[in-house]
Amino acid sequence: MEIKRRAEEIALIYSGLQKEICQKLEQADGKAEFTEERWEKEIGYGITCAIRNGAAIEKGGVNLSFVKGQFTAQMERLLGEKANNYIATGISSIMHPVNPHLPIIHTNVRFFSLDNGVQWFGGGIDLTPHYIDVTEAGNFHRQLKQICDQYSPVFYPRFKKWADDYFYIPHRNETRGVGGIFFDRLKPGEEISFEQLLAFTKDLALAYAEIYSNIVREKRSKPFSAEQKAWQELRRGRYAEFNLVYDRGTKFGFESNGNAESILISLPPTSAWEYKHQVKQDSAEQETLRLLKKDIDWINL
Amino acid sequence: MEIKRRAEEIALIYSGLQKEICQKLEQADGKAEFTEERWEKEIGYGITCAIRNGAAIEKGGVNLSFVKGQFTAQMERLLGEKANNYIATGISSIMHPVNPHLPIIHTNVRFFSLDNGVQWFGGGIDLTPHYIDVTEAGNFHRQLKQICDQYSPVFYPRFKKWADDYFYIPHRNETRGVGGIFFDRLKPGEEISFEQLLAFTKDLALAYAEIYSNIVREKRSKPFSAEQKAWQELRRGRYAEFNLVYDRGTKFGFESNGNAESILISLPPTSAWEYKHQVKQDSAEQETLRLLKKDIDWINL
Repeated sequence: MEIKRRAEEIALIYSGLQKEICQKLEQADGKAEFTEERWEKEIGYGITCAIRNGAAIEKGGVNLSFVKGQFTAQMERLLGEKANNYIATGISSIMHPVNPHLPIIHTNVRFFSLDNGVQWFGGGIDLTPHYIDVTEAGNFHRQLKQICDQYSPVFYPRFKKWADDYFYIPHRNETRGVGGIFFDRLKPGEEISFEQLLAFTKDLALAYAEIYSNIVREKRSKPFSAEQKAWQELRRGRYAEFNLVYDRGTKFGFESNGNAESILISLPPTSAWEYKHQVKQDSAEQETLRLLKKDIDWINL
Repeated sequence: MEIKRRAEEIALIYSGLQKEICQKLEQADGKAEFTEERWEKEIGYGITCAIRNGAAIEKGGVNLSFVKGQFTAQMERLLGEKANNYIATGISSIMHPVNPHLPIIHTNVRFFSLDNGVQWFGGGIDLTPHYIDVTEAGNFHRQLKQICDQYSPVFYPRFKKWADDYFYIPHRNETRGVGGIFFDRLKPGEEISFEQLLAFTKDLALAYAEIYSNIVREKRSKPFSAEQKAWQELRRGRYAEFNLVYDRGTKFGFESNGNAESILISLPPTSAWEYKHQVKQDSAEQETLRLLKKDIDWINL
C-alpha cells in the first residue's frame, strides 16, 4: 500500500510535468495545440497528449503512464530481482519537426517499483538531427552535463556513454543521432537520496521542453530544399527502425499489453526507405553519416 | 561435405528461380528493370535483385542467400535440435506497388540443413492488399491450394492456418493482409520425399511471380485518388511494423549478422503513421480493417 501510494504521488508529479512540457512546446510551435486523451486498460492508465501539423512540429506526443503487473520470470532474469508485482510510472515524449534542419528529440523519465521494496528511476534525453550541427550538439550536451553535475560528477560521463551504447542501431552500425544521456535502475542509497533522484528526473523533463523550444525558435525558419526533405524522410526511416527493432520502452509496452496507439506515437509522421542509398561526396549528408558514431566528445569537439 | 554439396545444389536451383522471378516481374512491370548485386560477408553470400520506380512496382527485391554459421544455444532451444553448424539457403521477395489498388506480395522459400544430418524446408506466400478485394483474395488462396494439393491434402489447411497465425500484428490486433500459406521445418520422411519438398518450394516461387504478374496486369491502370494513396501510406506503415517487430527472417538476418541493405529491401518505399487514424463509416477502408482477421475462409467466402 505504501509502495502504491508513493508511485501514485510520482504519477501526479509527472502529470504536472506533462502539462508544463505541452505548454512550453505549444508556445514554441505557435500554431498547433496538444489534444489530451486518457486511456484505461487492464494494465493501468495513461494520458496521451498529441500534437500534429504544427508550424514547427509535424508530429509529437507526450505520454504519461501508470501501469501495474506481474513481475514475470523474464523480468526477473533481465533485472536480477525477485518480486511478485511491479508498478511503473513515467513520461515519454518525442517530437518530429517539419524542417529537416530541426532535430528529432526524445525524452523519457520513469519510476519503477517492486513489491519487495526495491525501487529505481530511469530516463534520458537524446537528440537525433537529420543534419548534425556540431555547435548544437555541443550546446545540447553541455546543458545535460550541467543538470547532471548538480547531482553527481559521475552522472554525465556515465550516462553519456550509456546513451551512446543504447541509442545505437547495430544492423546499420550507426548511432541514432548525437546521443545525450541515458540511465536505468538508479536506486536511492548512500550516495543519493530518493528525493534527489526524483528531482533529477523532474529537471530533465523540464530541460527537455526548454532545450527543444530554444532549438525550434532558432532554426524553424531556416530554408530547406526538396532534397533536404527527402533526406529527412530517409533518416526518419532509421528512427522507425530503432524504435521498432530495439527500443526497450516499445518492447515493454507491447509485452505488457500497453496502449499501441500511445506507444507508437513515437513513430515519424512519414518516412522512406531506399535500397543502398548513396550520399554525395563531401555533402552535408555524408558529414552527418560520418558523425553518427559512438564516443564523440561533443562538448570539446 | 555431402551436406554442403546438397545445399550448394539447392542454392544453384534457387538462383535460377530468382532469375525467372525477376524476368516475369520485369515483363509485368514493363518499365523498370532489376539491378543485380552480389554481396559477401563472413556469414556467406547473397545475390540481391532490386527494382525501383517501375510503372507498376514502386519498390521490390528478390534476394537469394547462402549462409553458414554456428548453431547457437538459442537456436537449439528454439528449434529443439542439437547440432554444431547450420547451412541455409533461400529466396525471399517482396513487391510494393505504385497503385494502392494493387496488393503488396511476399514470398520466401528456404532450405535449412544441420551438420547432425537433419534438414528441412520452409516457406510461404502472402498477400497484403491496401484495399481488400474478396474475389482477388479467393483466387489467390485457390491458386495456393491447387499447388499444395498436388503434394498433400493436409498442406493447404495446415499452412493456411499457419499463415494466419504468423502474418499477424498482435499490438494492432490485425492480420498483415489476407494471409496465404506459411510453413516451416517440413522434413522429408515417409509421407513426402526430399525431391517432392524441393519441387514444392520451386512451384511456390514460380507461382509467386505468376500470381503477382496477373494481378498487376489486371489492376495496374485502375484510377486512384490522393486519399487512397494516403491510406496506402498508412498501410505501408503497418507493413514496416510487422517486418521490423515480428518477422523472423528479419530477426534471423540481423542476429546472424547478415546484409542489412538486402534484408531491409522488404521495407516500403515510403510510409506514414498517424496517431489514432479514424476511417470513415461504411468506407472501403473500414471494410478492409474489418477483414484483417484470422480464420477467414477466403475460398468459400
